[in-house]
Amino acid sequence: MAEIAAIAKQFVEFYYPAFDRDRRELTHIYRDMSMMTWEGVQIQGAAGIIEKLASLPFKRVQHKTTTVDAQPSLPGVKAIIVMVTGQLLVDEETKPQQFSQTFHLVEDKGYFVYNDIFRLNYA
Amino acid sequence: MAEIAAIAKQFVEFYYPAFDRDRRELTHIYRDMSMMTWEGVQIQGAAGIIEKLASLPFKRVQHKTTTVDAQPSLPGVKAIIVMVTGQLLVDEETKPQQFSQTFHLVEDKGYFVYNDIFRLNYA
Repeated sequence: MAEIAAIAKQFVEFYYPAFDRDRRELTHIYRDMSMMTWEGVQIQGAAGIIEKLASLPFKRVQHKTTTVDAQPSLPGVKAIIVMVTGQLLVDEETKPQQFSQTFHLVEDKGYFVYNDIFRLNYA
Repeated sequence: MAEIAAIAKQFVEFYYPAFDRDRRELTHIYRDMSMMTWEGVQIQGAAGIIEKLASLPFKRVQHKTTTVDAQPSLPGVKAIIVMVTGQLLVDEETKPQQFSQTFHLVEDKGYFVYNDIFRLNYA
């Protein structure tokens, strides 16, 4: 489980800073078979996912992760389920919003995102 | 995707009322290979998971789900990733706490929980 946790940590430490810097940097971690559900909207494929992320209506965003939990996925595949909770701050807002995000990472010459589900929790 | 959503909805509509009524009713949806991470504590196997749930230090609990998102898991297996966000109220408390929970459901003569990650978000 230590290796799983390390892979999850490494992924999260790449994902959110890249998201906050330039969402297009995330292109290579999605593939054509990748799925994203963003606030209930379903998108398939790297191109559509990045287009969605790039079109989100804020200029600046800052994620802060609170928890990162990871487990090995199904036996016989190198895959990991990661659930992240945290806060994000957009543009000039001063009150952070909470978010939850689940990733299913699959290994194939490096890990890519197979499943991605994102939700804001309006506290 | 409609079938996936229906299975997720059916699972959630079973899981939380059963949890709130008697956590031991959840025994049959976990197996020996099931994993749970409960607020960072890792547990493997149906017996340990149910023991953990039954030992949680509240008498009454009421879950209210806010969002349920589901996606098909890896190709070639009948499996579903479900992320739930919601609120829960324990015992005499009047202020609900937010929670996030991710399930990886796998079909084998009915769906069972392979992965389960639970977190409270302290808003």
